[in-house]
Amino acid sequence: MSVRLTELTTPALVIDPGALDHNLMTMAAERPGAGCRPHVKAHKITALARRQAAVGHRGFTCATIAECAGMVAAGLGSDLLLANEVVDATRVGALVAAGARVTVAVDSDATLAAAVHGGVREVVIDVNVGLPRCGCEPADAGRLAETARGRGLEVRGVMGYEGHVVGLPSRERRATDTETAMAALLVAHGAVGGELISGGGTGTYDLNRWVTEVQAGSYVLMDSAYGQLGLPFRQALFIVATVISVNRAGGYAVADCGLKALGMDHGNPTIAGATVRFCSDEHVTFSAPALPAVGDRVWVVPAHIDPTMAYHARVSVLNPALDAVDEQWEIDLRGW
Amino acid sequence: MSVRLTELTTPALVIDPGALDHNLMTMAAERPGAGCRPHVKAHKITALARRQAAVGHRGFTCATIAECAGMVAAGLGSDLLLANEVVDATRVGALVAAGARVTVAVDSDATLAAAVHGGVREVVIDVNVGLPRCGCEPADAGRLAETARGRGLEVRGVMGYEGHVVGLPSRERRATDTETAMAALLVAHGAVGGELISGGGTGTYDLNRWVTEVQAGSYVLMDSAYGQLGLPFRQALFIVATVISVNRAGGYAVADCGLKALGMDHGNPTIAGATVRFCSDEHVTFSAPALPAVGDRVWVVPAHIDPTMAYHARVSVLNPALDAVDEQWEIDLRGW
Repeated sequence: MSVRLTELTTPALVIDPGALDHNLMTMAAERPGAGCRPHVKAHKITALARRQAAVGHRGFTCATIAECAGMVAAGLGSDLLLANEVVDATRVGALVAAGARVTVAVDSDATLAAAVHGGVREVVIDVNVGLPRCGCEPADAGRLAETARGRGLEVRGVMGYEGHVVGLPSRERRATDTETAMAALLVAHGAVGGELISGGGTGTYDLNRWVTEVQAGSYVLMDSAYGQLGLPFRQALFIVATVISVNRAGGYAVADCGLKALGMDHGNPTIAGATVRFCSDEHVTFSAPALPAVGDRVWVVPAHIDPTMAYHARVSVLNPALDAVDEQWEIDLRGW
Repeated sequence: MSVRLTELTTPALVIDPGALDHNLMTMAAERPGAGCRPHVKAHKITALARRQAAVGHRGFTCATIAECAGMVAAGLGSDLLLANEVVDATRVGALVAAGARVTVAVDSDATLAAAVHGGVREVVIDVNVGLPRCGCEPADAGRLAETARGRGLEVRGVMGYEGHVVGLPSRERRATDTETAMAALLVAHGAVGGELISGGGTGTYDLNRWVTEVQAGSYVLMDSAYGQLGLPFRQALFIVATVISVNRAGGYAVADCGLKALGMDHGNPTIAGATVRFCSDEHVTFSAPALPAVGDRVWVVPAHIDPTMAYHARVSVLNPALDAVDEQWEIDLRGW
């Protein structure tokens, strides 16, 4: 493809291939092979999952049934973990019946029954390790595993996501709080058994030494929230926007990247050398010491990668010089 | 269609048809016909725009070129206002050349030149009335109009959006601040001329007596932010979610409606009778005096409608009893 960056309709999601490769290699070195089960919810792109598989990570984590189905359709369904509870597992069962391997998280008798009813064969017991979300109490994990096995399910182990820890600014605090969270998970694993102890994320990818696999997702593209933690991963994803209005008296400019192009739960995006004032549906208003001109392009970094990707239909992978598009990837794991 | 609500895959965007009709009729009574130019950015659905046209509003406001193109493709392109600046107007020019009427906002010599270059024939002068975003200074509007006419463009009038006013909690304050903003717009209109004075939004739809047309969008579906203003519009849009985990000891439950189903710039969504604690990518954690059971459905109201719609591929219009789907509408104006 020979589309120049300046020809892309904006807002345009783009990937810096050098930063992407750096991130892929950094994780593969620290957590080789099955030590990382990349979470596809962060990027929702089977073409990018294929890159992760190419550096050794052949198992993947999914958050939705649609992500599982898309991964299977792309030939990447040899070992998927649906790290989330589902009440209707029939679509998962259909994938399993067709030959895919999909292990499903269960944290209650109801979700366990849904797995059985839906035709799921393998589960992990999802354990609450401190984040007020899904997961059974650690003390209940053994009973659930026993019930599951009694109903014919294979219990592959446990998962417990320390989501309340992965974003803490202090590395030392992340280390100690991860240890606390994983102590609870290991208690559960002692009662459950199985080869999998799954957990962790980008913020604890090298600190969580208790899991057999980390479910990191954001590391591969990154965002400004994780960018503040001093991790060795580089910002690989940007939204290229066009400046459409400049108010020199007011000291601000406006570019065409707004709320429908950006996950906003972690706050405003950032623009290098500028201060973002606010976002509207299709605008970002920012001030800067040297204001750009109408027609200039700016590179916007989202605060939170996952809900940003879910807004876009495709992403352009740039050439190393970052001035043309090498290839376009469909963001093909969206929806439910 | 005879799909029962309980059969919908969640999270599922749904419309209450009674509330929708009420909102359509309320606006059509207050601002009949050309007095309202509904903004399609709020819902991004041509089928819903057709309903708005059926009650008399035949002109529409768009925020993106893709919205214009989609409206033209749906046969709703007889009078579109692209209420936003564009630097590359060639796609707009192509729509105009094919017979659509698309009027484009310009606020600078650069965007005016882009309109000429792209084949646009009609423009409005976009005037800054207090919101730090697009729009020229009121004092510059006459010069821009003169330049535009000198370059062969038809100048239909002015627009100025009081976006800094529409969400203010106090109705009295909205009234006075709208008057101030519109005083600036009327100065500009005095210099520009033309039949259009376009502005306003859902929060000022009945207060802004200076514009010839209000660009209201949210009124037709509503959200919890506008819901706090005491407007006569009803909540017509909900996201039906399934409870997937309940922690009775912790006093909370988790449903499958998260950051990828919700515009989050205005904060957390609401659930009647519950307190939302936080949202994750695919989860909303909430506490309630009476916790639901796993498998129960909850109805989630987004804080901001526009970026919520942009996440979803379709919406189900329910029957009057709200227990089955009458029809499904594609959210066909997404992207750029």
